[in-house]
Amino acid sequence: MNNRTSELAGLLPENADAALIISEANRRYFTDFVSSLGYLFVTRDGAFLLVDSRYEEAAKWQAKNCKVILFKNLSETIKDLITSKKLKRIMLEGSAFTLNDAEDMERIFANAGASAIKTKDLDKLIRQMRIVKTSAEIGKMRRAQSITEDAFVQTLKLIREGVTEKELALELEFRMRRSGAESVSFDLIVLTGHRTSMPHGVPDFTTVRRGDFILFDIGATYQGYHSDMTRTVSLGKVDRDSRRIYDTVLQAQKNALEAVCAGVSCMEVDSKARSYIDAAGYGEYFGHSTGHGVGIEIHEAPSVSPTNDFILRSGMVITVEPGIYVPGKCGVRIEDMIVVSSDGYINLTSLSKNLIEL
Amino acid sequence: MNNRTSELAGLLPENADAALIISEANRRYFTDFVSSLGYLFVTRDGAFLLVDSRYEEAAKWQAKNCKVILFKNLSETIKDLITSKKLKRIMLEGSAFTLNDAEDMERIFANAGASAIKTKDLDKLIRQMRIVKTSAEIGKMRRAQSITEDAFVQTLKLIREGVTEKELALELEFRMRRSGAESVSFDLIVLTGHRTSMPHGVPDFTTVRRGDFILFDIGATYQGYHSDMTRTVSLGKVDRDSRRIYDTVLQAQKNALEAVCAGVSCMEVDSKARSYIDAAGYGEYFGHSTGHGVGIEIHEAPSVSPTNDFILRSGMVITVEPGIYVPGKCGVRIEDMIVVSSDGYINLTSLSKNLIEL
Repeated sequence: MNNRTSELAGLLPENADAALIISEANRRYFTDFVSSLGYLFVTRDGAFLLVDSRYEEAAKWQAKNCKVILFKNLSETIKDLITSKKLKRIMLEGSAFTLNDAEDMERIFANAGASAIKTKDLDKLIRQMRIVKTSAEIGKMRRAQSITEDAFVQTLKLIREGVTEKELALELEFRMRRSGAESVSFDLIVLTGHRTSMPHGVPDFTTVRRGDFILFDIGATYQGYHSDMTRTVSLGKVDRDSRRIYDTVLQAQKNALEAVCAGVSCMEVDSKARSYIDAAGYGEYFGHSTGHGVGIEIHEAPSVSPTNDFILRSGMVITVEPGIYVPGKCGVRIEDMIVVSSDGYINLTSLSKNLIEL
Repeated sequence: MNNRTSELAGLLPENADAALIISEANRRYFTDFVSSLGYLFVTRDGAFLLVDSRYEEAAKWQAKNCKVILFKNLSETIKDLITSKKLKRIMLEGSAFTLNDAEDMERIFANAGASAIKTKDLDKLIRQMRIVKTSAEIGKMRRAQSITEDAFVQTLKLIREGVTEKELALELEFRMRRSGAESVSFDLIVLTGHRTSMPHGVPDFTTVRRGDFILFDIGATYQGYHSDMTRTVSLGKVDRDSRRIYDTVLQAQKNALEAVCAGVSCMEVDSKARSYIDAAGYGEYFGHSTGHGVGIEIHEAPSVSPTNDFILRSGMVITVEPGIYVPGKCGVRIEDMIVVSSDGYINLTSLSKNLIEL
């Protein structure tokens, strides 16, 4: 692991002496240490992780790129740090501090003669660092994806008439967690029949029927990193229109994948999927973006949307997941998670995308 | 359900025209409607829940105490509302708005000629409303507790030498969710052996051994409401010292329960448990508060701590959970969830507290 806190210290703007990071995801990103609570100060003169007695021992062993400091009285410990390091202006992590937390922290700073910078700038710096993944990070996402695929393949065997969306979703989650997932990447989506037309539907007691699609949007986390995959399968044969929708989404997804390469913009990738779906006459039924970045969080930069001119670089991990959702009829989405490379991409998803008819 | 938005409107301070609530828990509390995103404006002239197209249909059917408004462009919809209701100063929910979200919202307000009140006052008003539970709320917590107890009793059967903490925790969670829990109340705690001495330990691959305690701190949610229970059991007989620790915690817990009654302060309840543990010589090993409020969130007001002089009232739901944690030896905690009443309390936990030796 390269020294990420030093890297961030080097990126601090001139008017800031330090950055204060409190979110679990970013604390983990910078120090590789997991805890429910902690305060990471990144200064030009070193990084300091403040933890309470629950985490002192573990943090001293495991936390990287920082010095661990035990706090009993948080205000006092922060005051000591601010004084000894002569900090005057400290950037707050604006995506993690609530107004109430910020109010409390500003009072602590003021007592020590420092003030808070409450802009989005720190989040922007961190986003910029996180957007390109290291091979270690990609290894964790690969493992998360492999756990996801194993659980999916096993769960397919349980699909029969009468099984509910909820049962399938629970089964998937339990299999993932039993085989080493820290958690699921998000509330798993399993939808069937007409309900597949809801891009963000929530599994309920609807039962699978013959001739219907079953849509799975699923993922696991492994050592903090997420996977994300969507597959749409059917129980028996679907009707002709549904099959045409499936084939259209599949080709659109392949077209978008083919466009992926370092140097290409997000909107170009999106347009490859979108224009194909438009041409097939389903344009009005594809309402979301083609993809998004994935990493420590399930949705990260960059957004693979029709309006984002951001240029892809090697090592970025994105999803490619066009869909068609015809209300009252059915929906299909097909999603892979890939690493952008200098000459194309590496697909972290290994499962076939041909329609599986169970 | 009484009209909670009207009640809140009546509590707004003079300098505020409206309150803006965005947290999932509080939106649900005020409207009984669940969604991942929504903006609830409570004004003296009615309450308005802004949702996107995913939730429009469901919100119109289910959301109570408010008018549902669909937004496509959030800024425009908020501007229209501010203008038509002549809102000038709007309180933000400071525990839910991040600095970044608040910055965006203030820009929207400014465009419409309004400004934000960024204090903790709105949270205080809502906390005050939520602290006394209705019978409907208590009914949901009773159901959550019943799901928890059923899963616990079934899981006890799986305890044998070699089973891991993680397996037991997963099993409990799956049983709860299969039998109707929306989710678990928190990451379930199952610890065994020496590890029981960590009040906030996380289940791992440690296996159960004969002669050890196994500590379960578990809960489920049902229709948004939480349950919370701790039981410590043993596989076979524990040694004499451990048994003495168990008996001390049990008596301390009973003493605290006996003190509970409307009109009594939180610190009085705490002191009944604490003084008994002190007198038995374990005072230094009881480092946390005796209990906390429970409801839509797992930790709510009031805190049953040694320094909180807050007076209990009928209908408040609190936990009573003293513990003794001797590092390197063992820990015991016993926790019930109760409703305060005018002449004592109603225990929502029905399981025995006598030591179960499996």
